Amino acid sequence: MKMLKDPEHQVAGHMAKDGRLGPLVDGEGRFFKPFQSNGRGENEAKFYESFSSNKNVPDHIRGYFPVYHGTQVVEASNGSGKLPHIVLDDVVYGYPNPSGMDVKIGSRTWYPGVSQQYFNQCLKNDRETTSVSLGFRHAGFKIFDHQESRFWIVEYKVVHGYKVDDARLVLRKFVSSNSLADSIPDCAFASEVYGSSSGILAQLLELKAWFETQTLYHFSSCSVYMFYENESILMKGGEGARAQVKLVDFTHVLDGNGVVDHNFLGGLSSFIKFIQDILES
Amino acid sequence: MKMLKDPEHQVAGHMAKDGRLGPLVDGEGRFFKPFQSNGRGENEAKFYESFSSNKNVPDHIRGYFPVYHGTQVVEASNGSGKLPHIVLDDVVYGYPNPSGMDVKIGSRTWYPGVSQQYFNQCLKNDRETTSVSLGFRHAGFKIFDHQESRFWIVEYKVVHGYKVDDARLVLRKFVSSNSLADSIPDCAFASEVYGSSSGILAQLLELKAWFETQTLYHFSSCSVYMFYENESILMKGGEGARAQVKLVDFTHVLDGNGVVDHNFLGGLSSFIKFIQDILES
Repeated sequence: MKMLKDPEHQVAGHMAKDGRLGPLVDGEGRFFKPFQSNGRGENEAKFYESFSSNKNVPDHIRGYFPVYHGTQVVEASNGSGKLPHIVLDDVVYGYPNPSGMDVKIGSRTWYPGVSQQYFNQCLKNDRETTSVSLGFRHAGFKIFDHQESRFWIVEYKVVHGYKVDDARLVLRKFVSSNSLADSIPDCAFASEVYGSSSGILAQLLELKAWFETQTLYHFSSCSVYMFYENESILMKGGEGARAQVKLVDFTHVLDGNGVVDHNFLGGLSSFIKFIQDILES
Repeated sequence: MKMLKDPEHQVAGHMAKDGRLGPLVDGEGRFFKPFQSNGRGENEAKFYESFSSNKNVPDHIRGYFPVYHGTQVVEASNGSGKLPHIVLDDVVYGYPNPSGMDVKIGSRTWYPGVSQQYFNQCLKNDRETTSVSLGFRHAGFKIFDHQESRFWIVEYKVVHGYKVDDARLVLRKFVSSNSLADSIPDCAFASEVYGSSSGILAQLLELKAWFETQTLYHFSSCSVYMFYENESILMKGGEGARAQVKLVDFTHVLDGNGVVDHNFLGGLSSFIKFIQDILES
């Protein structure tokens, strides 16, 4: 196996920085996510095992999830020794310059049966962020600034404090070509990234159609990760953008028990309306 | 004006019984709902005023709401003197023997800005009932037992304690012709009441389509009230059932502020899946 290294394009979650544990990539298309603590890593691996062998998941839906390659014990990013990692396709492999955005879906991140402490922490976060009001919250992003030729990243703490207007604005900045310091994003790439027949909106609507009937899993604290390639968008338009939606973060997936995941579905519907509003404006 | 009297077919909410304040009907098609305390009556009247004059509400959606006829001060049901009432169409007027069911939609009945006390009370109720797990909870019903030739009513306290299986079972009993004491409801009327082209499912799907784009109102603590006529269903089938869906209880409606009502939409989608499951089984 090749040397593992820090991923360049991670936008949210536990990042390998300043000695903290984070994911790794092998530079050949694989992503290594270290098991998270308190059983969350085991839960996530269990979900991937279940999902990847579940014959009730339609093929066109499978494409919205990172491909799973089992677990593997490798040297951790922070040098703390060998640790188990979930091995996945590196979804941005082959994207030299991707803009990416991680949006946690659902107005509620707690679920029945959690500890009082976890319940309190989730409820506090849900109320402090836009989760309760919008049904989703921004968890992080990395947007290429075409004027400055560099990525624009906002600290987690700042993103956590986003209000409705910030949430709307950053979704416009995500697809704009003018300087991100400008207060009015031009949304130059909106139709290519969000709108084209294979764009973000079409993918989100396909996912939503599945969520209206699927009762296999409840995706608590799960994110929509969307990304596209900046190098080719200016030359090739929508096709060059290769815009994609993936669901990520499955440390809190539960058995659906025959019930629709109304928390995820409601939040996803709200998020979709935000994207539609940008396309219509 | 004719003498007002207690309505025969109310299934949930504040009932006029044992000297308590409740709604009244005039026996000619009008329903009088006394203003609820703590400003809730004013809120509800304000909603009806706004809704009935709102040109952005499509006509086919208006039919899912009781027609509003302003407010009127009349003698209260409990003899406590004259009180303001909201005057509405009596939606079950002309139904001699209706089965009715009130289902509170949404996994969350609190909303940003409420008092700590109201928040605590709502959260407790949402967790104790099926609201959190299913995205809806039963609030009351009155189901005609064709074997016993009488209505089956379950105490509020018992309904409040319903689990997932109870919620599913009572939706089957609602459309069954065998004795409600039987543990296996026959769902004899499912296709007529839930399934026909103008039945409950078709109406719920039409409502849902509106909720996917409407950002005018957020319907906190609002109920789907569904009912049909038993006298004619045996003779005339689906058409005789005259099954209808109405939204009721608007004491906690908020301005939508350009955001989809993801809490209601998610819960409604989950409820719809329960109805679809009955039709498919």
